[in-house]
Amino acid sequence: MRLSLSPCPNPIFWLSAPAPFSDQANNNLIYFSFPLLAEPLYHNREKNCSPEVAVEELRETLENLLAEQRWDDLKLLLKQKNPSDLAEVLPLLPASEYALLFRLLEKTKAVEVFENLEFEDQQRLLAGFRDEQVRELVEHMSPDDRAELLDELPARVAKRLLKMLSPAEREATSLLLGYKEHTAGRIMTPEYISFKTYLRVKDALEKIRRIGLAKETVYYGYVIDEQRRLLGIISLKDLVLADPEARIGDIMHKEVVFVHTDDDQEEVARQLSKYDLIAIPVVDREDRLVGIITHDDIMDIMEEETTEDIYRLGAVPIQEQSYFRSHMLTVATRRVGWLLILLLTNTMTGSIIMKQHSLLESVVALAAFVPLLIGSGGNIGSQTSTVIVRGLALKEVTFANALLVLLREVGIGLMLGSFLGLIVIFWSYWLQGSWLVAMAVGVSLVVISTMATFFGGLLPLIFVRLGIDPAVVSAPFISTMVDVLGVFTYFHIAKIILNL
Amino acid sequence: MRLSLSPCPNPIFWLSAPAPFSDQANNNLIYFSFPLLAEPLYHNREKNCSPEVAVEELRETLENLLAEQRWDDLKLLLKQKNPSDLAEVLPLLPASEYALLFRLLEKTKAVEVFENLEFEDQQRLLAGFRDEQVRELVEHMSPDDRAELLDELPARVAKRLLKMLSPAEREATSLLLGYKEHTAGRIMTPEYISFKTYLRVKDALEKIRRIGLAKETVYYGYVIDEQRRLLGIISLKDLVLADPEARIGDIMHKEVVFVHTDDDQEEVARQLSKYDLIAIPVVDREDRLVGIITHDDIMDIMEEETTEDIYRLGAVPIQEQSYFRSHMLTVATRRVGWLLILLLTNTMTGSIIMKQHSLLESVVALAAFVPLLIGSGGNIGSQTSTVIVRGLALKEVTFANALLVLLREVGIGLMLGSFLGLIVIFWSYWLQGSWLVAMAVGVSLVVISTMATFFGGLLPLIFVRLGIDPAVVSAPFISTMVDVLGVFTYFHIAKIILNL
Repeated sequence: MRLSLSPCPNPIFWLSAPAPFSDQANNNLIYFSFPLLAEPLYHNREKNCSPEVAVEELRETLENLLAEQRWDDLKLLLKQKNPSDLAEVLPLLPASEYALLFRLLEKTKAVEVFENLEFEDQQRLLAGFRDEQVRELVEHMSPDDRAELLDELPARVAKRLLKMLSPAEREATSLLLGYKEHTAGRIMTPEYISFKTYLRVKDALEKIRRIGLAKETVYYGYVIDEQRRLLGIISLKDLVLADPEARIGDIMHKEVVFVHTDDDQEEVARQLSKYDLIAIPVVDREDRLVGIITHDDIMDIMEEETTEDIYRLGAVPIQEQSYFRSHMLTVATRRVGWLLILLLTNTMTGSIIMKQHSLLESVVALAAFVPLLIGSGGNIGSQTSTVIVRGLALKEVTFANALLVLLREVGIGLMLGSFLGLIVIFWSYWLQGSWLVAMAVGVSLVVISTMATFFGGLLPLIFVRLGIDPAVVSAPFISTMVDVLGVFTYFHIAKIILNL
Repeated sequence: MRLSLSPCPNPIFWLSAPAPFSDQANNNLIYFSFPLLAEPLYHNREKNCSPEVAVEELRETLENLLAEQRWDDLKLLLKQKNPSDLAEVLPLLPASEYALLFRLLEKTKAVEVFENLEFEDQQRLLAGFRDEQVRELVEHMSPDDRAELLDELPARVAKRLLKMLSPAEREATSLLLGYKEHTAGRIMTPEYISFKTYLRVKDALEKIRRIGLAKETVYYGYVIDEQRRLLGIISLKDLVLADPEARIGDIMHKEVVFVHTDDDQEEVARQLSKYDLIAIPVVDREDRLVGIITHDDIMDIMEEETTEDIYRLGAVPIQEQSYFRSHMLTVATRRVGWLLILLLTNTMTGSIIMKQHSLLESVVALAAFVPLLIGSGGNIGSQTSTVIVRGLALKEVTFANALLVLLREVGIGLMLGSFLGLIVIFWSYWLQGSWLVAMAVGVSLVVISTMATFFGGLLPLIFVRLGIDPAVVSAPFISTMVDVLGVFTYFHIAKIILNL
């Protein structure tokens, strides 16, 4: 066994050996039984491999086998590899080989791999397929993955595909597509197992044996009444542990966490992770069970949402299409919007400074401290907005404690400003030799820092109230605002202190 | 049934009715059977409730019942409520009531609630308990949650607690605590179900029935040899669907995704979510199975890691202790570190500008455009660093494509700079009437933008190489760097163009 358990810290490699019937696994046996697998794994024992390396090696193996036309070995390797890995590696191959290998997959495996592909890679495949092949593939996708695909495809193509499907599958998909994007209804799957209360445990298990394979998860069964309203839930674990003669109604859990079709997907993620569920049921406005959302879909959504938040905080537009696939010019045009707004806001600093022309001419030294003042202010403000925005996302900041939090931040800003201001006074005196100017700089920093924390804390709260994502109060947003307010404050404080 | 299904978009409320044996649920029956539950739910039908409201109402209900000393109703309510909800609400009560209600929980429920509490709330409870109660509680926690608790407690207290435990539990916990923080070994639990290959399906199911309840998850069983080395995996679904007489060795999956004890928890999360697993096995250096990590723990870790990334990007120090519990002064001292570094860096801008004293005196107008130039540069740089840092976290940016990505970003910076530069030329001319100064400003913006994207893209890559978290290349970090470089560039370009 040792051999095939690669020391790769990222086990993209898989334990694969003929099932030993005794417990003495026999290295040689394994080694020779799958030379083409044992090879790369053997290498990995030497150099401690990274996922990139692993992917690279699988890709090479595939290309070599293709070159040598070792179809049986290819089929075997494809059979052994996990859909997620294949979905990662196949698109890296030349278009023709990509399509060819995909066709070598057995039907069910092909569907799994297809579901794991990036949208762009799915599109490339479909483009090369005949209608029949496309239908074959899309017909057997799980409704939620299919809805996602159709959603991203051009409306015209999507409509054509939808027409190809069998009535049942078409209906299932249209239902999902009927719900708003990013809602529970859109991401759920109608493939769940349901029971009636009067069913006996042994019959329930029988039902699972009968239809289980077709469902997204059999780990939970949902108990419904004649109107399909959700009465309770029972886990496969419960069924296995229960007396076969017991009735579902007696042993089901009556406390069920559920979401509504129009709940936001972030809310779904919060519920699922709060209650440690494998899947969460979705009910419609009439409280009828219409679908479930499984933990693996939620994990993908959490990753997606995180990227969105992080992008917003960096003033990067959220791009539907993957960044690395989109053209430079496209990316630039997307980004320019925010920058333009920030630039135009920042032009105010210019006008303000020009207004203070005379002041500057008499004390040119003042100009030397502008970047430092607005820079520090921006940084302090960003810290605050970051904490508040994240707090709002995690529901740690609510309107109940908003005022308290804001006061805290302003207090913190005052402390930080005073401390840094003190340092700055001495430094700026040393730099240009006038205590008055030094005072002006120090005092300004205190005021600017306090201001920065105030707005950095207040604006996200206001935006939430207005239904805008608070994450737009990004570091760039705050620092630009502080640029304007800071310059204004600085010159006016200077005027007073230097009484000019 | 309708009544108790609250329309609350955040279903902190639970379906709760006596199990109906027919499917005709009877509202009145339900309504009157749990007055104390039906009440709040009924309200929620009126006002569409938020999670905060829901928590608030549960809290009120509890306090009222306490005030009226309705112990039986209290016990019933506590029995019905989910541990996660109780863990959220109980700490909100006055210390004495908090401890009192916790004591009203039945033993197993109490442990579950305790495991769901924030560390600070766990500490408060333990502080008030007698040694025997503490032992009772900690003894029955699951090893991974216990390890987490002991980890955060003061070493002295932790050691004392550890001594109280039974030898078995103590060993399990010490094992986990032996691994580095944030590694698979530290967050795993040794409570998994394992089978031998020769076991028959019916015996395996029997084993699950016997010991299943004690394990973290029974949805996967791990197949091991005499040396406890991982041979394969079999899901509860497989067991239920399989022929009872079949041998585990024949039907187990031989491709197993696993992680090593010293793999980083982020890597574990990536694997679990990539392969859509409910739990992932952890093996030690000898490839022996030592534990599993379940999806729910991973979700919490993903949230934690996200917060860390977002904080770093906002130049906010990662705080072990919850932000809202720590004192203002503490927060300020934590934050001041980064600010100080950035401030000292920024003092360079002052020195640079003072050096150009003469230049400024002859053309004071130049000062007017400093904030705009360095501001825009900072924003463009932040966009780049954000995209790269996130790309690295998602493994979309690798050292394989790093150079390409960097070139892209520089190209994008050049485009953005040229576009914005053009606008700025006309605006700055209009503002101060000299084409030469306007030219200097415009050209500087082009150079600064390109520079910003270059460093915004390069530094995260360098940091990764040095093993530093690239997220420290935050918006504040970049904008401060651009402040210095920008001012320097600007004045030198101005000097050349104005030939002064």
